[in-house]
Amino acid sequence: MIAVLKQNVTERQIEQLTQWIKNQNVDVHLSKGKDYTILGLIGDTGRIDRELLESLEIVESVKLVSEPFKQVNRKLHPEDTIITVGSAKIGGGHFALIAGPCSVETEEQIIEVARQVKASGADILRGGAFKPRTSPYAFQGLKGEGIRLLLEAKKVTGLPIVTEIMNIRSLDLFEDVDIIQVGARNMQNFDLLQELGKTKKPILLKRGLANTLQELLMSAEYIMSEGNENVILCERGIRTFETMSRNTLDLTAVPILHELSHLPVVVDPSHATGRVGLVPPMAQAAAAAGADGIMVEVHNNPACALCDGAQSLTPAQFDEVARKVRRVREAIL
Amino acid sequence: MIAVLKQNVTERQIEQLTQWIKNQNVDVHLSKGKDYTILGLIGDTGRIDRELLESLEIVESVKLVSEPFKQVNRKLHPEDTIITVGSAKIGGGHFALIAGPCSVETEEQIIEVARQVKASGADILRGGAFKPRTSPYAFQGLKGEGIRLLLEAKKVTGLPIVTEIMNIRSLDLFEDVDIIQVGARNMQNFDLLQELGKTKKPILLKRGLANTLQELLMSAEYIMSEGNENVILCERGIRTFETMSRNTLDLTAVPILHELSHLPVVVDPSHATGRVGLVPPMAQAAAAAGADGIMVEVHNNPACALCDGAQSLTPAQFDEVARKVRRVREAIL
Amino acid sequence: MIAVLKQNVTERQIEQLTQWIKNQNVDVHLSKGKDYTILGLIGDTGRIDRELLESLEIVESVKLVSEPFKQVNRKLHPEDTIITVGSAKIGGGHFALIAGPCSVETEEQIIEVARQVKASGADILRGGAFKPRTSPYAFQGLKGEGIRLLLEAKKVTGLPIVTEIMNIRSLDLFEDVDIIQVGARNMQNFDLLQELGKTKKPILLKRGLANTLQELLMSAEYIMSEGNENVILCERGIRTFETMSRNTLDLTAVPILHELSHLPVVVDPSHATGRVGLVPPMAQAAAAAGADGIMVEVHNNPACALCDGAQSLTPAQFDEVARKVRRVREAIL
Amino acid sequence: MIAVLKQNVTERQIEQLTQWIKNQNVDVHLSKGKDYTILGLIGDTGRIDRELLESLEIVESVKLVSEPFKQVNRKLHPEDTIITVGSAKIGGGHFALIAGPCSVETEEQIIEVARQVKASGADILRGGAFKPRTSPYAFQGLKGEGIRLLLEAKKVTGLPIVTEIMNIRSLDLFEDVDIIQVGARNMQNFDLLQELGKTKKPILLKRGLANTLQELLMSAEYIMSEGNENVILCERGIRTFETMSRNTLDLTAVPILHELSHLPVVVDPSHATGRVGLVPPMAQAAAAAGADGIMVEVHNNPACALCDGAQSLTPAQFDEVARKVRRVREAIL
Repeated sequence: MIAVLKQNVTERQIEQLTQWIKNQNVDVHLSKGKDYTILGLIGDTGRIDRELLESLEIVESVKLVSEPFKQVNRKLHPEDTIITVGSAKIGGGHFALIAGPCSVETEEQIIEVARQVKASGADILRGGAFKPRTSPYAFQGLKGEGIRLLLEAKKVTGLPIVTEIMNIRSLDLFEDVDIIQVGARNMQNFDLLQELGKTKKPILLKRGLANTLQELLMSAEYIMSEGNENVILCERGIRTFETMSRNTLDLTAVPILHELSHLPVVVDPSHATGRVGLVPPMAQAAAAAGADGIMVEVHNNPACALCDGAQSLTPAQFDEVARKVRRVREAIL
Repeated sequence: MIAVLKQNVTERQIEQLTQWIKNQNVDVHLSKGKDYTILGLIGDTGRIDRELLESLEIVESVKLVSEPFKQVNRKLHPEDTIITVGSAKIGGGHFALIAGPCSVETEEQIIEVARQVKASGADILRGGAFKPRTSPYAFQGLKGEGIRLLLEAKKVTGLPIVTEIMNIRSLDLFEDVDIIQVGARNMQNFDLLQELGKTKKPILLKRGLANTLQELLMSAEYIMSEGNENVILCERGIRTFETMSRNTLDLTAVPILHELSHLPVVVDPSHATGRVGLVPPMAQAAAAAGADGIMVEVHNNPACALCDGAQSLTPAQFDEVARKVRRVREAIL
Repeated sequence: MIAVLKQNVTERQIEQLTQWIKNQNVDVHLSKGKDYTILGLIGDTGRIDRELLESLEIVESVKLVSEPFKQVNRKLHPEDTIITVGSAKIGGGHFALIAGPCSVETEEQIIEVARQVKASGADILRGGAFKPRTSPYAFQGLKGEGIRLLLEAKKVTGLPIVTEIMNIRSLDLFEDVDIIQVGARNMQNFDLLQELGKTKKPILLKRGLANTLQELLMSAEYIMSEGNENVILCERGIRTFETMSRNTLDLTAVPILHELSHLPVVVDPSHATGRVGLVPPMAQAAAAAGADGIMVEVHNNPACALCDGAQSLTPAQFDEVARKVRRVREAIL
Repeated sequence: MIAVLKQNVTERQIEQLTQWIKNQNVDVHLSKGKDYTILGLIGDTGRIDRELLESLEIVESVKLVSEPFKQVNRKLHPEDTIITVGSAKIGGGHFALIAGPCSVETEEQIIEVARQVKASGADILRGGAFKPRTSPYAFQGLKGEGIRLLLEAKKVTGLPIVTEIMNIRSLDLFEDVDIIQVGARNMQNFDLLQELGKTKKPILLKRGLANTLQELLMSAEYIMSEGNENVILCERGIRTFETMSRNTLDLTAVPILHELSHLPVVVDPSHATGRVGLVPPMAQAAAAAGADGIMVEVHNNPACALCDGAQSLTPAQFDEVARKVRRVREAIL
């Protein structure tokens, strides 16, 4: 950690600050130029409260030299982490197609969608049982029953399943779930992350709508610091001023996360864009950016002519997306 | 709810959509112009999945005519809600000064700060016991012991206390806490909100870093829909591209929230700006914008000359802020 | 245009508003439901000041039914526009690789880079002569001399050239330039756009850092409304809270712009990301999203070992990018 | 300027970089800790291309020690700048009320509004003659005729006038205008800024919708570096994700700009909020935050009952705002 001090700082102030830092068992290396004074902090700087240091009147700015994340850091773990669930692998050159309906509705629905996406090459089945909703009056999902139906679909098709948890008190229900998803709104629900860190389940951690990539990595660190090494990062769009897509898909996150961390990175173009016509090009683009997987919504409702235009792809559209994505994967090898 | 359809929509598609809506016990009123087709939805439109409707290919856009929030809505509850804790009142013309240290550290510290802020006119004591931190390796607060110390300070000074909850499992510890704070990162932790809605405790609900005012009101609705009418809204800055302040304090939120809702609105300039020099002008500005209270950090550490520049005001600085804020309050009557 | 009125609006207010609209030769179609009142505006609604209408107290919101852009609109011009410069074509299935140095520095430099990027398959040479800089004290480019050197490089290699204009008063210098670039900061310099609309030169119009896609299209409309149909849209990243890349490349802009407009869309991953390691994956992703071209920075400075890490690719790196991008293009056919 | 190098940098790379910097006549001071290597750049670092330096592979980050702005910098000019136009003064304890219609429409209108705002205590008359509009088909203002009418109103009332310039070619028309406004969209139209820097006219420089405060100061530096010291900074809202106000008024900008610069700072709550009900509280808040002036829209159209709800205040509403703002000013002394 480096603290750049303000130009008008006095000797006495430097001394006081240096002493305060040393009292926390961190050594200080002073460097003075004509226009600047820098304190280099040496040792276990994790003890130093960076925000406090930054807010001191004599401190111009504080710069971390080493990243604040450890176990997720590629520097300390150069080889890619590969997550294995059933016959599917994610990361380290393995690409996973994750597909399924937004919400689990009926046994018939989830089994039919599972069969169809499997036929098109999907590796993992997704489906919402617990649904975080902005409004308390909106449908909140089938909850435990939804998980039971997903497990039925798994039994029939052999596809591993991923579904979202909203509260640690429902963890028991997730015993046979292959991958537990933490949604964007819970990315900094630190208590939930710590509890999930005590399991060995693969966790799919979605980036919050207004969270930086460093914060995403720190949330992954919360899980890993409790002993669970099976974390999958997921880019799903951030909140910006643009209104023509639901959120702004930040695909540059893929190479950045790969550079900083060994964890696999998947992309969810369905929630990011919110419109079915945008899902295929952005799924292709995610693959071209080097993602380790994509997660898309697929519905199956032949009776409902209306639904063809919704955020979810039809099975036929998904089949085409899967084909193109595989071709793009080959093109960038 | 109004659905504006795309220009090239066919009669058959309109019929299908109308039928689908009517199947959900909502009536439809069709209005066609030369350039547009509009469906007016009449009845309990809460049943309609707005996102699904919006994502249909034939739908240009969906417009809510009435706000999605009910119990927080000023239209249904015109008079201001007034929250009473001890001798303090917030809302409906009552202004509350909330002050105290960022974190509770020692009994001596919290009692001394409580005494000093009370002497300057503070109505409520704040102090962090459970601290949400981006890093799992950072100090997470004194937790239960911190609450115990706050209660000591309350006993000595008579000031009611407000402190943050992070997990519903620690609710028992908050039995004697006067106001339970929900932090920005938990604003959409819907399970936590619902559980707090089952208590009768006043809840201070902070706006999330990237949450709209409508989302803030919907989160308040989560609490109220469970029966707890004691909600205080808190603006504490949003995330933007500007880096010279920690966040961007959105003071326009104050008159907007007052227009839409009967709930009191307080402003936290300390966390929003992150720099002590910015706290006094923004505290004054919050009062001038019509806030029902301000919440500021005050520390008391005479031995630590360094801390004078931090995010927290000294007691002397707080005294001056309190005086100015009272004068601004009078000026806008 | 549709105006949704507030619930408590009176008959008299509706009448006044209707009259005001009709006075502007626009007809009004009233539609009343239980919970809403809607005015449908029929005719040349371009005369109506939307912002004024929106800000009226009795108006809840205003909704455009038809897009405000005309000549750029795909509905009025379904087939793709193809821009031809020399032997290069952009749009309608034609993909253009645009490459060259950030700034033109010397004749030797620009000719050498031009030769190398041509050998790797570049279709168009880019290079900055007029450089918009945040600081008045920074290097502002070789200006007219820079354009002369670009024309030398064009003579030697046959590559058409694109370079940025900052002020209409320097237009004469651009007589032999093939494509005139309007930079992000000038995207809403409407006087400049109108003057460029009076030429027949292809204009490469970059999206502003905080401009919506609709605003980008309206700025293209400024050029087209003066008679110049040769506009190329360019996505180059928007400003968000994320700091790990210089800007956030919004690749979803590509399919959205293609849906709304017939104009070609190119992507600039160099300026968007600001880091050389991020350029290849984002160039690939841009191609996979369906872009009609990419524009990347390539430098040639064998003596400067340092520069290999800068925002600009080396010629060898560009060769690899060009090869991958061609493969991705084939993969998505 | 300080460059923090990456941890794995070699001695040879440090040497190369040091040599490259020294070749630009800037001295280098090397500082090595266990975990970091820092180069302190000493001398005229304005010659160093910061973006290039930042993008080098071996450079972790670059930190400016001294601000990049000079003439606007309070450090080099501690006393407040006071701008005098006619009998009005802005800055250094002088507060200016700037009021008038959005657009100049007729002689009768502008004179009537001028009279009324003067009666309520306005110091300066505002009114748009050249109107930047997103759409080429929207009303673009009365242009030269609008300025003529403003000058008539000035003759009648004695109020100095401020109006916006969009193109340097119309500068002659502004000869008798007291303050020339540069709009948000032209904040980084550097050629325009430089030309205005060659005049001695006071310039009211509005912050761009997505521009940082540092960029605003750098644009002011463009004007001052050409010799014009009469610059007024104007906060008018930034673009964020929130949609309930037109933009997000960033009032924290006021104390930040005052800390960094000696230039006066005014606030425009009308354009920032876009709704008349939000203007009074935000005008009060701007005054409480320490602004040197506020600029609000006032219309005068007794025949048009509709307009009462628009972004513009009525003269009676302005009278009330003016009264409250004066009281707030006194409260914070």
